[in-house]
Amino acid sequence: MNQDYIIPDNWSIIEEGFEPERVCSSESLFSIGNGAMGQRANFEEYYSGKTFQGSYIAGVYYPDKTKVGWWKNGYPEYFAKVLNAPNWIGINVKVNGEMLDLNTCKAVEEYRRELNMKEGWYSRTFKAKMPNDMVVKVEALRFLSLQEDEAGAIKYSVTPLNGDAEITLVPYLHTGIENKDTNWEEKFWEPLSVTESGVRAFATARTLKTKYTACTFMSNTVDIDGKILSLVPASENTTDYVSHTYVQSVAANSTITLYKYAGYVTSMNHVVDALEDAANKVLDTVTGLGFDGLLQTQKDAWAKVWEMADITIDGDVKAQQGIRFNIFQLNQTYTGADDRLNIGPKGFTGEKYGGSTYWDTEAYCIPFYMATKDEKVARSLLKYRYNQLDKAIENAGKLGFTNGAALYPMVTMNGEECHNEWEITFEEIHRNGAIAFAIFNYVRYTGDYSYVPEMGLEVLIAIARFWHQRATFSTNHNKYVILGVTGPNEYENNVNNNWYTNYLAQWCIHYAAENIEKIKAAYGADYARIMDKVQLSEEELTDWKKVADNMYFPYSEEHNVFLQQDGFLDKELITVANLDKSQRPINQKWSWDRILRSPYIKQADTLQGFYFFEDQFTKEELERHFDFYEPFTVHESSLSPCVHSIQAAVLNRMEQAYTFYLRTSRLDLDDYNKEVHEGLHITSMAGTWMSVVEGFGGMRVKDGMLSFEPRIPEQWNGFTFKVNFRNHVLKVNVTKEGTTFTVDGDKDVTILLNGEKATAKAVLKTT
Amino acid sequence: MNQDYIIPDNWSIIEEGFEPERVCSSESLFSIGNGAMGQRANFEEYYSGKTFQGSYIAGVYYPDKTKVGWWKNGYPEYFAKVLNAPNWIGINVKVNGEMLDLNTCKAVEEYRRELNMKEGWYSRTFKAKMPNDMVVKVEALRFLSLQEDEAGAIKYSVTPLNGDAEITLVPYLHTGIENKDTNWEEKFWEPLSVTESGVRAFATARTLKTKYTACTFMSNTVDIDGKILSLVPASENTTDYVSHTYVQSVAANSTITLYKYAGYVTSMNHVVDALEDAANKVLDTVTGLGFDGLLQTQKDAWAKVWEMADITIDGDVKAQQGIRFNIFQLNQTYTGADDRLNIGPKGFTGEKYGGSTYWDTEAYCIPFYMATKDEKVARSLLKYRYNQLDKAIENAGKLGFTNGAALYPMVTMNGEECHNEWEITFEEIHRNGAIAFAIFNYVRYTGDYSYVPEMGLEVLIAIARFWHQRATFSTNHNKYVILGVTGPNEYENNVNNNWYTNYLAQWCIHYAAENIEKIKAAYGADYARIMDKVQLSEEELTDWKKVADNMYFPYSEEHNVFLQQDGFLDKELITVANLDKSQRPINQKWSWDRILRSPYIKQADTLQGFYFFEDQFTKEELERHFDFYEPFTVHESSLSPCVHSIQAAVLNRMEQAYTFYLRTSRLDLDDYNKEVHEGLHITSMAGTWMSVVEGFGGMRVKDGMLSFEPRIPEQWNGFTFKVNFRNHVLKVNVTKEGTTFTVDGDKDVTILLNGEKATAKAVLKTT
Repeated sequence: MNQDYIIPDNWSIIEEGFEPERVCSSESLFSIGNGAMGQRANFEEYYSGKTFQGSYIAGVYYPDKTKVGWWKNGYPEYFAKVLNAPNWIGINVKVNGEMLDLNTCKAVEEYRRELNMKEGWYSRTFKAKMPNDMVVKVEALRFLSLQEDEAGAIKYSVTPLNGDAEITLVPYLHTGIENKDTNWEEKFWEPLSVTESGVRAFATARTLKTKYTACTFMSNTVDIDGKILSLVPASENTTDYVSHTYVQSVAANSTITLYKYAGYVTSMNHVVDALEDAANKVLDTVTGLGFDGLLQTQKDAWAKVWEMADITIDGDVKAQQGIRFNIFQLNQTYTGADDRLNIGPKGFTGEKYGGSTYWDTEAYCIPFYMATKDEKVARSLLKYRYNQLDKAIENAGKLGFTNGAALYPMVTMNGEECHNEWEITFEEIHRNGAIAFAIFNYVRYTGDYSYVPEMGLEVLIAIARFWHQRATFSTNHNKYVILGVTGPNEYENNVNNNWYTNYLAQWCIHYAAENIEKIKAAYGADYARIMDKVQLSEEELTDWKKVADNMYFPYSEEHNVFLQQDGFLDKELITVANLDKSQRPINQKWSWDRILRSPYIKQADTLQGFYFFEDQFTKEELERHFDFYEPFTVHESSLSPCVHSIQAAVLNRMEQAYTFYLRTSRLDLDDYNKEVHEGLHITSMAGTWMSVVEGFGGMRVKDGMLSFEPRIPEQWNGFTFKVNFRNHVLKVNVTKEGTTFTVDGDKDVTILLNGEKATAKAVLKTT
Repeated sequence: MNQDYIIPDNWSIIEEGFEPERVCSSESLFSIGNGAMGQRANFEEYYSGKTFQGSYIAGVYYPDKTKVGWWKNGYPEYFAKVLNAPNWIGINVKVNGEMLDLNTCKAVEEYRRELNMKEGWYSRTFKAKMPNDMVVKVEALRFLSLQEDEAGAIKYSVTPLNGDAEITLVPYLHTGIENKDTNWEEKFWEPLSVTESGVRAFATARTLKTKYTACTFMSNTVDIDGKILSLVPASENTTDYVSHTYVQSVAANSTITLYKYAGYVTSMNHVVDALEDAANKVLDTVTGLGFDGLLQTQKDAWAKVWEMADITIDGDVKAQQGIRFNIFQLNQTYTGADDRLNIGPKGFTGEKYGGSTYWDTEAYCIPFYMATKDEKVARSLLKYRYNQLDKAIENAGKLGFTNGAALYPMVTMNGEECHNEWEITFEEIHRNGAIAFAIFNYVRYTGDYSYVPEMGLEVLIAIARFWHQRATFSTNHNKYVILGVTGPNEYENNVNNNWYTNYLAQWCIHYAAENIEKIKAAYGADYARIMDKVQLSEEELTDWKKVADNMYFPYSEEHNVFLQQDGFLDKELITVANLDKSQRPINQKWSWDRILRSPYIKQADTLQGFYFFEDQFTKEELERHFDFYEPFTVHESSLSPCVHSIQAAVLNRMEQAYTFYLRTSRLDLDDYNKEVHEGLHITSMAGTWMSVVEGFGGMRVKDGMLSFEPRIPEQWNGFTFKVNFRNHVLKVNVTKEGTTFTVDGDKDVTILLNGEKATAKAVLKTT
C-alpha cells in the first residue's frame, strides 16, 4: 500500500487533518454520485492549491479528435470522452472581505472529511485561521439525491469564532469548463445563456459536436442560527457564469448557513426548449422537501440499497470498510435505472479513460448487479450491447471482417471504438468473448432465457462469425490458430495463440451453435426472424464448428499446463518473488519492450479462463495452473487480485486469498497503485464483491440451484451477504461455527452446501 | 507504377503541360540541393493552388514535443525535426497590376519543367493568359551552388506577348515559416530582424529551443533585353518579411529579367554577431561571378561529380534516366563536406520523418559514397556514429541496459531518438547491427583499418554489450534467444527470434571480439586507452562469446530454410501472387493487425541477412531462401526492390532483376508507392546504385581485391560504372560482347572476373 490516512470505520470513509498533498487523492475517495451524475470531492469554496476539478453527467460525452504519433489504418477518427460538466458546487466565501482559501490560511485545524456510506452524504468540517486572523469554523455537507436524481444539495455553514464578522457567501454556477483530459486542448462546452428568477439561477450550455444541452441550476436560502433570512442576493452574470452574493454581519459564534439546491437537467431526458421549466420543477420538488427532508429521502434510499447489497464482516474493520466502499461506489456509479448508461471504469471520479464501457462490465460487474438488484438491471446491461451490435459489425468491417461478424469495441460510449493503441484496439479481441460469456452467465444465474431469442442470439451469431473469420488454419499444426492478439494480460502484445482467447473463441462458437439449435427447437418465430436477418447457412455453421473443433491450444508437456501463448517458455522464468523490489511496479520502472519480453503477467489471463470456465477443469488442474502463473503475476491491473483471491479461496489457501482480498477491496483506499488522485477503479470493485461471495462464500450456480462452499479467513469472525436469486432473497451468514441460510418469504429454498443438498429457511418479512 | 508523366531523357527530368494535381509531386521530383541546403521545386511567383512549400538547411533542426496517444516508458520527450526554413525563392509578379498566379490564369501553355542533372540546374517555362487577358511568357532558372554552398541564384524572365505592359517584380525573403510536419502546430522559427542595404536585404531568424540563427539574404538586379537597369527598388519590411519592388514598363516581346542571388548563412558555420558580414561576403562572391559565371562553376562542379559517379546504360533511356536521377539526388543531399551531417531519408525534399539518420545510411548509403567519393566521406559517416556513442549508451540506459551497452536510435539528428512507436523505437534493434556491419564493410572495401583502433572498436564493444545483455537464455531451447523484436520487415512487430536480428547479434559479438584481439596484438597503445575507458574484463568477453556461440536460429526442416521468426509457419501462407490486387498496397488497404498476422513481408528481412553475409552461404542456400521469401514480399518499402534485384541477378534471374531494378530506380519518377508528393526516397537511391554495381556488375571485394561477375539485362546493350577503390579509379564497361576494365593512372590493377584473375588496364589521364 502507498497510503494509510483513511481512518478505519465500519460505515464511513474518514480523513482527519488537512494535508494539501492529499487533496487530489481525497477528491477521488470522497466522490459522490447517484448514477445520473457525480462529482469529485472538490471544495465548495475557492482553493488555490492543487486540485482536480471534476463534475460529470452520465451519458454526456464529447467526441475528441484522436491524437496519435503514427496513424494506423483502422483507428477511429474520434473518441467519446467522459466530460467534465458545469460546476454547481461552488460557493465562494469571504470573511471581512477576505477570500477563504485553505491554501492560504495561517492554520487549518479540526479538518475532517466524512463520506457516510450508510446514508449517502459527504461532509467536511474545519476551523481555519485566515490571513486576516479571523478564525472561522466551516461545516459543509452535500449529497446527490438518489430519489431526485437530477438534483443535489449542499448545506454550508460558517461560524466566526474570534469576533463578529461580515460574511459573504457567493454560490455560483459555471459552465465555461475545461476538460483535464483533452487531446487537442479544445473546449468541449459552449455556454449558451444564463437566466435568473429570484433566488434561482440557470446556466445553459451545450456540448460541441454532440450537442447535448444541459441546464445547470441552483436555488439558495440562507439562515443564521436557524432563522431564515429573506436576503435578496446581488447577482452577477456572464454567458458562462452566474453568482448570487449574500453579505451578512454575523456575531461571533453565530452560524450563517447557506442551503444550495442545484443540479442538471439535460436534453437526454427533456425537450431542449423546456429545460428551464424542467429545472424549475426539480427545484420546486427539492426546495419543497427542504434540506432535511431531501436528506431523509437520501437516507431512506440508501437504506434500501444496503438492505440488499450489504456485506458485513465481523472482526475486521478494514476489510468491512473496504467492501462497503466498493459496494457504495458501484451503486453511486450505476443504478440500472437508465439502459443507455453503463459502468465507466472511473465512474464519476476522474477522466482518465475515454468511453464508459469496457469488457469489465461483462466480466466483472454483471454478477454484482445480477445478485444485488432486480435481474432487469443485468438484462439492461446485456441489452446495451445488443443496441450497439450494428456498430460492432461496422467496427469489425473496418478491420476487414465481413458477413455480419462483430467486434465490440475495447472502450465505448455509443458503440464506436474509443481507444487507439493497435495492440489493444485491434488485438485485444477477447473482449468479444466476455460479451458472449455474460449472456451465458445471465441465463445460468437468472434462468431467464428470454433475452436469447429476443436479442442475445444475434449477438452470439455475430461474435461467432468474428471468431470463425479471425482464426486461420495452420498447416504446421494442422489446427486453427489465432495469431496476433493481446490477452487480458496486456503485458504481452501481438502474441500467437493466447490460450484464453483461443479457448473463449472455441466456447463462443459452440455456445452460439447450441443456442441456434435451442431457438430453432423452441422459439420458431424468433428463429425465423433471426435467420432471415442474419442469413446463416448450414454450411457456414459447419465451417464454424470445424474451426472450434480443431482449435489449437499451446500446452507444455513439461509443466503439464496450457501455455499463456506460443513461446511463453522461451522467457527468462524468474518469479516475481525473485524480482528486485526496486524494479516494481514494472509499468512505472521498465520500458515497454522490457515488460513485453519478461514473463510478468499484469492480471489473470490463463487464470481468467479458469475463472470463467471453472466447471470445465478439475481442482488439480486449477491448482497446477495457479501455481504456474500466479508467481509471475504482478497484479498491476485493478482487475487482478479479485480473481486470484477467489481461486486461492477455492484452493483453500486462505491467507493468500485474504491478502488478495485486502488488495482488491482497499486498492483505492490504500492507493496500492499510486494513482488514486486520478480517480477510483470502479469496475474492479465488483470483483471485490465477487471475491467475498464467490471466493469466501464459494457461491456458484449449479443446475439452476445456488451452491455454496463457505471458507472463512482466519482474521474474520464471520461475514454475511445477500443475493437475489430467481425471486428469492437469500441471506448467507458464515461464521467459524458454521453457515446459516435464510430466505425472505414464506417458502424454504433448496441449495447445495459443500456439495450436499441443504435448505435455506424461509423467514416471514416483517416489513 | 502510378504515374508516367515524366518524359524519358538521358540527362534531364522533364515535365510538359501544366496539371495542377501534379504540382506537389513535381515539387518533390524537381527538388534541388547542394548538400548544405535544398528546396522543393516550389514556384517563385505566387500560387494559390495546392502546394507543399519546403526549403531546408542541412543540420538545422527543432526538437518538437512528442505527440502520442498513450505514453510508453522510454519514449523521448522531444524529436529533432527537419525544419522548413526561411523562403528566399519568392518573386511575386504583377502584370498591369494583376498578380500572376498559375492557379487563376485563363490558359497555361508550353509549360515545361526541366531538371538538368548533368549541369545541376532547374528551369520552368510557360506562357500564361492572365485574367486581365495579358499573355506573358515566363522563364525561370535556378540552382543551388555546389561551389558556394551558402548561395543559390534565380534568373526569372517575363515577356509580355500581346501588348506593352507594366511589369512588377517583387523578390522577397520570408522567415515567418511554418512546418507542415509539426506535432502541436507550434512555430519553430522566431523572426529576429530585417535589414537592408541598397539592393541587398537580410532577414535574420532563430529557431526556437535549438537557437540556430540563420541570416537569409538576397541581392537582385534587373535587366530588359540584357540591358541592366539601375532601378532603386521600393522596399517593404516587417520583422519576418522583406521585399523589393521593381516596376517597369516593358514593351511587347521585350523581356524583363530579374537575377536573384540568395541563400543562408547560419550560426552552424559563423559567429552569430557576424552573420550579416558573412552574408555580404557570400553576396560579394556570387554577384562578382554574375549569374552566368556562377552557373558555369555549377556546371563544372557537377561535371566533376559525374566524372566519378556516373553510370551509363545503353539502349534503355528510362533505366538511364532512373539511375542518374538517383545518383543526382544522392549528391544533392549529401556531399561528404561536413561530418556533422548525414543522409536524411527524404533529403531536402519533404518533412515526413523526424531526424536525418536511419540505419539506411549504414546499410544502403555507405557503399555508394565509398565507391564514388574519396574514402574520407565514408569514414566521416562512420565517425558521425562514433561522435554519438555516448548518446547511444544513454539511450540504451533508458531501456534498462547497463555497463556501456549502446543502442543507437532508430532515427536521429543529434544522437537522441526521434521516433516513438514502441514496436520500432524499442524493438527494431537490428539497426545496431547495421552500424557494426558498416565498420566491417568500410574496412573490407577501403583497407583502411585505422578507424577501428581510433574510434570503431569502442562502437563495436558498446554494440556487443548491448546484444549480450539483450539476449536471454531459454531453458526450453537450451540456447540464447532474442525476444520481442521488430526486424527490417516492419510488417511484423514484437516477434521472437527474428533470424536476421539473431544472426547479426551473433556476428556483432564475434566481430567485436575478433577486433579486440587484433587491436590488442597490433595497436597496444590504443588497446590500453580503450580498455581503460570501457573496462572490459576477460569474464565479460567470455560471457559474450557464450551468448554468440549458443544463439538460437529458428529453422524449418520441412522447407530447409531459416525462419524469419518463431511461428512464421503458423501463418496462412498465401503468396502475393495469389493475393487479390484490390487488397494492395496492404499498408493502405488493411488494418495493422491484419498486416501483422499475414505472411507478407515489407522488405528484405531474412534476405537482408543473406545480402550482408552472402559469403557465409552457398548460392543454393540463397536460392532456397529467395524462393521461399520473395513470393511473400510486397516491397512496400523503398529499401526492398534493390536487395531483391541484386539477389535475382546473382541467381541469374535477369528478367526479375531488371523488373526490381526499374522499380527501385524509378520508384519516385513513376511514383510506385503513391507518395512522391511527400518527398523523395533518398536513401533507397543508394540501393539503386548497388543494384547496378553489385547486382548487374556483380562487384564484390574478395581478399582486398575487387571481383566482378557481370550480368547484363536483355533490355540493355551495355552499361558502365566507375568505382574508387584503394586509390584506383576503375571503370567497368559491360557489353553483351564482354566486359572491359580500365584504370585511371599508369599502373595495371589485378581484379577477379568471374572468379579468375584478370587485369584492369591502366590509362594515362588526359586531363
